Amino acid sequence: MTDPLRISATYRLRVAAPDATHRAQQLALEQSIEMLATSVNDPHVLDTMVARVDNVATDGDGTHTARLALSAETIGDDAGQLMNMLFGNASLQPDVELIDVEVPAVLAGVWGGPNHGIGGMRRYTGALERPLTCTALKPIGSTIESLVHLCSVFSDAGIDVVKDDHGWANQRSAPFAERVRACQKAITRSNAARDRCTLYAPSLYGHFDEMRAQIELARREGVRLVLIAPMVCGVATLVALKREFQDMMFIAHPSLGGLRIAPEALFGKLFRLFGADAVIFPNHGGRFAYPREVCRAIARHNTQPWHDLKPTMPTPAGGMSVERAAGIVGEYGRDSMLLVGGALLSAREQLAARSTEFVNAVAMAAEAVTA
Amino acid sequence: MTDPLRISATYRLRVAAPDATHRAQQLALEQSIEMLATSVNDPHVLDTMVARVDNVATDGDGTHTARLALSAETIGDDAGQLMNMLFGNASLQPDVELIDVEVPAVLAGVWGGPNHGIGGMRRYTGALERPLTCTALKPIGSTIESLVHLCSVFSDAGIDVVKDDHGWANQRSAPFAERVRACQKAITRSNAARDRCTLYAPSLYGHFDEMRAQIELARREGVRLVLIAPMVCGVATLVALKREFQDMMFIAHPSLGGLRIAPEALFGKLFRLFGADAVIFPNHGGRFAYPREVCRAIARHNTQPWHDLKPTMPTPAGGMSVERAAGIVGEYGRDSMLLVGGALLSAREQLAARSTEFVNAVAMAAEAVTA
Repeated sequence: MTDPLRISATYRLRVAAPDATHRAQQLALEQSIEMLATSVNDPHVLDTMVARVDNVATDGDGTHTARLALSAETIGDDAGQLMNMLFGNASLQPDVELIDVEVPAVLAGVWGGPNHGIGGMRRYTGALERPLTCTALKPIGSTIESLVHLCSVFSDAGIDVVKDDHGWANQRSAPFAERVRACQKAITRSNAARDRCTLYAPSLYGHFDEMRAQIELARREGVRLVLIAPMVCGVATLVALKREFQDMMFIAHPSLGGLRIAPEALFGKLFRLFGADAVIFPNHGGRFAYPREVCRAIARHNTQPWHDLKPTMPTPAGGMSVERAAGIVGEYGRDSMLLVGGALLSAREQLAARSTEFVNAVAMAAEAVTA
Repeated sequence: MTDPLRISATYRLRVAAPDATHRAQQLALEQSIEMLATSVNDPHVLDTMVARVDNVATDGDGTHTARLALSAETIGDDAGQLMNMLFGNASLQPDVELIDVEVPAVLAGVWGGPNHGIGGMRRYTGALERPLTCTALKPIGSTIESLVHLCSVFSDAGIDVVKDDHGWANQRSAPFAERVRACQKAITRSNAARDRCTLYAPSLYGHFDEMRAQIELARREGVRLVLIAPMVCGVATLVALKREFQDMMFIAHPSLGGLRIAPEALFGKLFRLFGADAVIFPNHGGRFAYPREVCRAIARHNTQPWHDLKPTMPTPAGGMSVERAAGIVGEYGRDSMLLVGGALLSAREQLAARSTEFVNAVAMAAEAVTA
């Protein structure tokens, strides 16, 4: 059971065994009132605001796990303030990692999770049963003509989501407004000839007001899905955008997410909580070093029942290939989206054929999984 | 000389010696086009957008230093996009740290640095020669009456800056609007009796639009200085706010800044570049583990000439005490602001006396430094 007034946060402490309990108590003060409890006069502050150490345990590897109960009242409904309380100052102390978080139902309701989640990703694309396919528009610096060509090839091949690389902002070579208009137009044209729908996801940049204007522009062009990096723009910006644009879907990019916050907690839970419909994470065996179990835990946290939050589409990525598609489907199952980017583009003149191969590999692997 | 079209970024690589050059080349692709250069057709992309490896050197400790030249054209003038290009995906790869950054003059001009910087902190407070003193309103959860009392005591004692803890958002116990009105009023009353000016710095929360409304409210009450955590709200938000409110000053809080980005680069340079007038950083010997040389480098980067950017006020903090004040002044010199928070409050009934002691200790130490 979750205490309705407390957030449960679990930390790994890398300290000597005799210091573990004291370190946990220090952490509880650091992540709540930022001062000694003995200097506090107000009993309300002591009872309600100070984080409570619920448990300290020593693990097999000699590190310690400390479970703290943070006061929900310290958060004031702000997503950024949750990050402050979970790991703000602790991020500056190298002996501590945040490894898990659980929020009370009332805070889950405050942020509310994805607008649409996996169900929406399926409805909008028409891919009702199988894993989704996703690729990226690369490289930044390309001309709009080149991007339009890529959009047509990918969409004609039946890839479900074509997203901007997160490196796309408002570069002179392809300014946001022109890029979005041209890419969405190419994809709309390709969609018209078919019974399914490829979605184009432009990359948002800047602050809340700029992103809001970008979404308004993109929606007018028919865009229903956008890419956002919550650790770059701030998690409160994601929350505010998904609230304001309830018909839109948001793919969260992990950029700048390499804090000492466990990927299972950040990409598995927090991004879902704040409203990501799909979450990109570095898959094992690619360019990034997350172990397989971490990746599986991210996907599990994205999809399993959690308060009343819709499930979020897990999107393994990062150096993936068409050859690995069947294995990835076998691992994550139907409720996943496979993102293969650079590996498609390396086919050069065979881009269309390789894209079709990707789509077919996922569809075939999905049948094997459901069989 | 800085290449006018390139950003120089220096990384530490923790790889085996034979792999260092290859790893640097991989990093150059990851932090620019996110694909293999051999898959790129467009010569403009290859020449202009791909990051260039300028130098790879092996250091005494067996790690390697790689200096990359990132394309300024990939940034599109957006501060968040600079973070993406400097360390977005790299943050997810544990073998790499960002240790230094230099931007061309054109980008320094784009972001422009502090509105006022050290000079403004001095003019607004009237503390023209000596280091400034700063303390924090704690703990979160306090009543407004209690905060008003603290403001009066601190201000009467002559402390230059009284800031909210960064844990203050919009908690029910002291909602932002009421808190700011009451605290600024108490400080204005205290200022009226003197020839110098204590500044109150409320803590901003949420996204750009919310912060803008908070600043507008605070300005109407006479506030001229605010606290912001750029890694929580997004660096682009800081840039936009300091542009819109040119009479305001911004103290940057390091919350969530514990990425594998060297504090010298993040707190020393990037926060200054994006517009912080003062930068709080964890001082050595307190609750945080930065070595003395790192802290000195942060202060040096804040204050030394850099393009046309105003200097930023270095603000050592984190478990500091009145007893240490003279030593801190000796170390950082006159262009610094000393932040002592919890240690003042631990004086309890002697709060006013201890606050005066803090102010006097800094003033006396400053005379010793200039003598």
